[in-house]
Amino acid sequence: MIVIIGLGTAAVYATRWITSLNRDEEITIIEKHEYESYSPCGIPLILEKSGNFNELKHPFPRTRRIQVYLNYMAEKIDPDAKKVFIKNFKTGEEKEIRYDKLLFAGGADPFVAPIKNAREYIGKGVFVVKTLEDAEIIEKYISSGLKNAAVIGAGAIGLEMAYSLKVKGLNVQVFEMFPQVFPRALDPDMAKIVEEYLQSNGIKVNLNARVNEIVVENGIIKGIDTTNGKYEAELVILATGVSPNTKVLEGIVKMEKGYIVANERMQTSREDIYAAGDCVIVKNFVDSSPFVVQLATTAAKQGIVAGINLAGKDAVYSGAIGNFVSVIGDLEVSAVGLTESYASNKMKTVSARGKALDKPEYAGGKEITMKIVCDNNGKVLGAQAIGKNAAREINVIALAIRAGLNAQDLSALETAYCPAVSDLYSIINLTADLILRKINPSSYIF
Amino acid sequence: MIVIIGLGTAAVYATRWITSLNRDEEITIIEKHEYESYSPCGIPLILEKSGNFNELKHPFPRTRRIQVYLNYMAEKIDPDAKKVFIKNFKTGEEKEIRYDKLLFAGGADPFVAPIKNAREYIGKGVFVVKTLEDAEIIEKYISSGLKNAAVIGAGAIGLEMAYSLKVKGLNVQVFEMFPQVFPRALDPDMAKIVEEYLQSNGIKVNLNARVNEIVVENGIIKGIDTTNGKYEAELVILATGVSPNTKVLEGIVKMEKGYIVANERMQTSREDIYAAGDCVIVKNFVDSSPFVVQLATTAAKQGIVAGINLAGKDAVYSGAIGNFVSVIGDLEVSAVGLTESYASNKMKTVSARGKALDKPEYAGGKEITMKIVCDNNGKVLGAQAIGKNAAREINVIALAIRAGLNAQDLSALETAYCPAVSDLYSIINLTADLILRKINPSSYIF
Repeated sequence: MIVIIGLGTAAVYATRWITSLNRDEEITIIEKHEYESYSPCGIPLILEKSGNFNELKHPFPRTRRIQVYLNYMAEKIDPDAKKVFIKNFKTGEEKEIRYDKLLFAGGADPFVAPIKNAREYIGKGVFVVKTLEDAEIIEKYISSGLKNAAVIGAGAIGLEMAYSLKVKGLNVQVFEMFPQVFPRALDPDMAKIVEEYLQSNGIKVNLNARVNEIVVENGIIKGIDTTNGKYEAELVILATGVSPNTKVLEGIVKMEKGYIVANERMQTSREDIYAAGDCVIVKNFVDSSPFVVQLATTAAKQGIVAGINLAGKDAVYSGAIGNFVSVIGDLEVSAVGLTESYASNKMKTVSARGKALDKPEYAGGKEITMKIVCDNNGKVLGAQAIGKNAAREINVIALAIRAGLNAQDLSALETAYCPAVSDLYSIINLTADLILRKINPSSYIF
Repeated sequence: MIVIIGLGTAAVYATRWITSLNRDEEITIIEKHEYESYSPCGIPLILEKSGNFNELKHPFPRTRRIQVYLNYMAEKIDPDAKKVFIKNFKTGEEKEIRYDKLLFAGGADPFVAPIKNAREYIGKGVFVVKTLEDAEIIEKYISSGLKNAAVIGAGAIGLEMAYSLKVKGLNVQVFEMFPQVFPRALDPDMAKIVEEYLQSNGIKVNLNARVNEIVVENGIIKGIDTTNGKYEAELVILATGVSPNTKVLEGIVKMEKGYIVANERMQTSREDIYAAGDCVIVKNFVDSSPFVVQLATTAAKQGIVAGINLAGKDAVYSGAIGNFVSVIGDLEVSAVGLTESYASNKMKTVSARGKALDKPEYAGGKEITMKIVCDNNGKVLGAQAIGKNAAREINVIALAIRAGLNAQDLSALETAYCPAVSDLYSIINLTADLILRKINPSSYIF
């Protein structure tokens, strides 16, 4: 019996692979929501478009051997008796389930930053964005007729929500304590492009702005008080990161900063307890440093690796590459691997930024800017792209990083060209060439 | 003094790199057209849209040290005296130009298949598609009020032109002597998808149909006579491949089937004569077999390699990978590397075909089908994709082939996900997984 705690992306992919490799395996899944897996990343899009958040739910494929407990929380784990104690938080019903192997995929929940009144007013004018309930209550709140929204945090969720709220007719301001948007994923020069896009779409971006207090009068949100001054707002979105749901495993498995440490087989420090997804800390593929990634695609891979191992076969996870895209309005923002800001603290780096159209002007080409970051031998460490098709261009770089390739390989790559969809010389070729100019190799391999 | 014969893609990129590596180099370019470089691949698109073929012309960047002779043909080359004899075919003026090194980038012209009346009626109802003059005369001919068009050859040019002519209001039939469309680039199972798309758009596709004669009455095209029967047509497009413009080098450098044999430095059998682009035969990156590719991107890479070597630095071309895309209406058809039809004659292959949406259904996802072909160890040999974003998905596979990766690497690739532009589990992941299922590896590396 395999027990899986949490029915998010990691669990879905683990289950898929377990059942495909071993049809006879019995699986029990404990999920705290009353619905099965869903796509939290789609919330800003649905908010902007249809408002029907049920579209984000996935049917979870069942077999006779899969049991799912919805509305249940894992209250306690006894690793010696190999038991999980669960409780239905609606009915109060309690159960204990014995496992042979456990997969912990409890995910992470929005982190409520220590801002005065934030925690107290969650759901009452202050909102986090993760569950479908979060989404529905935000939509309802908006439709009560608001004017001003403040978004705290300029990462993917914050900026996507900011744009959606703007589309819904609100005045939107974004507050970020770092001096740039996407402080983890982008270098400052690339972040500037996003910032300008937001500003030109009427979304004011306040950088270096730490929020001290959510101003409340007579129980009603009136605004926020920041190190930059006071701003009016009747709606506050908190997009200030996440914190892992790992409490139930405290004292049982090794953790770092609250995240479960998983080895390359996605095992915790207890060999019969596996972990995958937003709640784990793994290594960065590029530099082997400890790495926490909250991406659905990463969770899927980790779930697959855990699943294969749980099914009795052998799988190894080489580390997370952090390949990400966020779409704000019609601006694609994508990045993978190390930023130059990060990498240049550890080694000598060479970077270049190229700009091109995704296809010829006569075919309606749109702009894309790419930055590639390499070590001083030209080995690719990371890349960022903003504009048309950014995600799919970055996927190529993701594979280059995975394969340990260098800028020469990217220069040499023959890309597919037809004016209706692409240009003869791709943004990847062009940007890699700029790296080569700087490296000035003694010989070129195409 | 470097002399370049031909101002197509290979020459443009060679010049760009020569001048960037060595500003003092003098370059003389001989071009038979009266215009500089242009984008022949854009002809079907412009025909369909604006009809302004001048949009396809590129300004060729000049420096003080670059001399361009337009309207000039290279009539004779004396490799011992290192001279090119050129003639202006409008004015009759003749010149001789001495070179230190020569780059031959004469390209290839449409091959006029041995069909009765074809050659005689070129430009008078029978058309090839390469130059801007070709495009203009076709457009003029269409506007004279025609009903039926026959397109001979179901490769990229033939099918793109077929679609454009359909959009212009003609009844269009395609005739292909092979039993499938894209006989070189696609496997039959994938070609079928394209065929069905054409048929559903009202373009009749006749396979296994060899054209014997263009039927002419009183000097006017009336139709075509094929092994499948007779068909009415007042306009015939010949898209039956190309033949290299290499006559002037006959007896001077080594050739194979009329193509110039180039080594990995893009040198011919005479070390001071280089060649690049549609007129050369190189090796296939995947299996090292002799390979002729008529792709602009391939020409660009070869031009760059020739250019670097001509500039006195060192560059090597590893072979052509044949990464291609053709867009027919809104259908992207892309392929790279070896087809299964080809590879399975040489080795044991494993292939799989996956189908997915490019992004979630709620975000307006569109279908893409991908086929990946591997050897029996899972090493990637080639791939084909049809549908939304096919070209950019295939670019990832192109890099995988270049890096010698296998299906496991593609399964493991973390792709960028945001519902507005992509799905959590990409078509590449999904198709590679199907390969893994067949190979059933003893261990998995993610």
